[in-house]
Amino acid sequence: MKINGKEYRTVAYDGTAVSLIDQNELPFSFKINTYTDYRLLTEAIKDMTVRGAPAIGATAAYAMALAAKEAKEESFRAELKTALNLISQSRPTAIDLTIGAQYVYEEALKFIPNYNRAKEVALMAAEEFAEKSVQECYDLGAYGAELIPDGARILTHCNAGALATVDHGTALAVIRAAKRQGKDIFVYVDETRPRLQGARLTAFELKEEGIDHAIITDAAAGYYFWKNEIDIVITGADRICLNGDIANKIGTYEKAVLAKEHKVPFYIAAPKSSFDFSCFKGSDIPIEFRAEEEVLEISGVRVASPGSSALNPAFDVTEAKYITGIITPKGVFAPSEAAREVQS
Amino acid sequence: MKINGKEYRTVAYDGTAVSLIDQNELPFSFKINTYTDYRLLTEAIKDMTVRGAPAIGATAAYAMALAAKEAKEESFRAELKTALNLISQSRPTAIDLTIGAQYVYEEALKFIPNYNRAKEVALMAAEEFAEKSVQECYDLGAYGAELIPDGARILTHCNAGALATVDHGTALAVIRAAKRQGKDIFVYVDETRPRLQGARLTAFELKEEGIDHAIITDAAAGYYFWKNEIDIVITGADRICLNGDIANKIGTYEKAVLAKEHKVPFYIAAPKSSFDFSCFKGSDIPIEFRAEEEVLEISGVRVASPGSSALNPAFDVTEAKYITGIITPKGVFAPSEAAREVQS
Repeated sequence: MKINGKEYRTVAYDGTAVSLIDQNELPFSFKINTYTDYRLLTEAIKDMTVRGAPAIGATAAYAMALAAKEAKEESFRAELKTALNLISQSRPTAIDLTIGAQYVYEEALKFIPNYNRAKEVALMAAEEFAEKSVQECYDLGAYGAELIPDGARILTHCNAGALATVDHGTALAVIRAAKRQGKDIFVYVDETRPRLQGARLTAFELKEEGIDHAIITDAAAGYYFWKNEIDIVITGADRICLNGDIANKIGTYEKAVLAKEHKVPFYIAAPKSSFDFSCFKGSDIPIEFRAEEEVLEISGVRVASPGSSALNPAFDVTEAKYITGIITPKGVFAPSEAAREVQS
Repeated sequence: MKINGKEYRTVAYDGTAVSLIDQNELPFSFKINTYTDYRLLTEAIKDMTVRGAPAIGATAAYAMALAAKEAKEESFRAELKTALNLISQSRPTAIDLTIGAQYVYEEALKFIPNYNRAKEVALMAAEEFAEKSVQECYDLGAYGAELIPDGARILTHCNAGALATVDHGTALAVIRAAKRQGKDIFVYVDETRPRLQGARLTAFELKEEGIDHAIITDAAAGYYFWKNEIDIVITGADRICLNGDIANKIGTYEKAVLAKEHKVPFYIAAPKSSFDFSCFKGSDIPIEFRAEEEVLEISGVRVASPGSSALNPAFDVTEAKYITGIITPKGVFAPSEAAREVQS
């Protein structure tokens, strides 16, 4: 993605350290943090220095590679297992996280007792995982762009952008591809409380790409549906089940219900790593609850009435019946078909 | 309403000045502002020192009384007409504003050329308007409480509390009455971006009343509908049309669509002054757009990506088909019947 006219990736490795664009600092300060300790990198997933399902998937893959790099021969398998547990438990909802860490773990173990080779392979597997994610996002963008009519007014929620992936994005990969095709588009950006990823990150990416957009509060989309001023909704997903139910950032479900009510197509865009082939339906997905301070405070300042508490589910489930199609690197599929098509 | 154990009204008159609880300062500081100049009082409506349809209706009535008090005999009618225009145009969506100002205006004019009597009558009319609003809110609370089952989990949006009225509230009058009946209730409070009236004011009122509640982001209600953890939705209204369509705080419509999808009853609570007997349908209601800074900044601090702009509709329209019933001081009616029943 372009930032100040230069190409960056959200997650990268330079042969020594893993670097992350610090998304807690964006858009006000552009800072890149580097990590050589997998525990600190895992902490960066937890504190949302890096966020977005495919981005934390690639970060988890690199974290496993860093864990392998430091593991002692006599306790190699145990250390990797400890790391796998720590990384996988850093956040509960996005499946990409477990898939990225597990993939690198399994590749490395194949080469035991050649520990040096196992360490090299872990790194190569992480690189491959990240690279594949970049390619998948590019590919799904191209498929998705075919769904965007010229003149479309698009609603998106949270940040399903390059910052949520290694590069290109998911929902924003589609929007970027539509823009590359020369289509005239306008994007309504849900601000996405409590952490404001829409207002902070999606607006930032769209501005850097020169794509017309306006930020709205999460409560305002209904007004624009009612005015018939939204033509299509596209969001990302943190986990996709076999039956086509998905989990995504809190508030996604509300938009899906509105889209259905107004007969507006509602699409999910996701790479293969967001599919959970062991999860049958949405109600099986664990939903992360985050600290109530995210709701009660903004930028560290209390905004809510003192003495009141908050509930802060970070994700919600949108059932397949609300989803027009899932945009994947292999094409656009009906929700109930998507897992099978992507796996094949 | 009780604040720190003492009874207050949102809008009051002590024989000399009109006093308002400063709602831009709440809940962090409890401050009462006094006004003797109707222009400053009108400014307080505009800058939302006082907000909520019935509260600004009573404030508008008092503003007309202050205008009459200062009007010169030789230009009495013209000065009152100027004041009426200024007050009515201070905010566009809530009809109560115009109704309150117009009522006092017409009462005063009846006594011309007895100007002293006209001034006295203007004040009495404002007092009567405010007092009637208090009684109506109390009465609608009693009717509405019958709809609340014991153990109910209630969703409300924005602040339809005592602070939005002269006293008691509309949606919160219902909740207060249910609590008085000894019912065990829990309230989900939408924080209500951009101005956070839910997190700031509704949570404050519920805490002062000892009613169990939790603040949620506006995007999170969908999750609780999906979990079947919301039994009833009650909000206020800024304007109610003859066909039962209503306008209320931005985000109300999204909750109404969710309630319909989940077969959860959705009620509007409002006094007579929120009915616009000249407005046929929701699309006829003017929707106020407020400054984009309300979305882009929080507590004066920029939260959104620099260089992006925002759209900030302050209200939305919920059509009658989404509304289970309208709770009024005369009883609970089907939306299409409510205007006729309230007027009769």
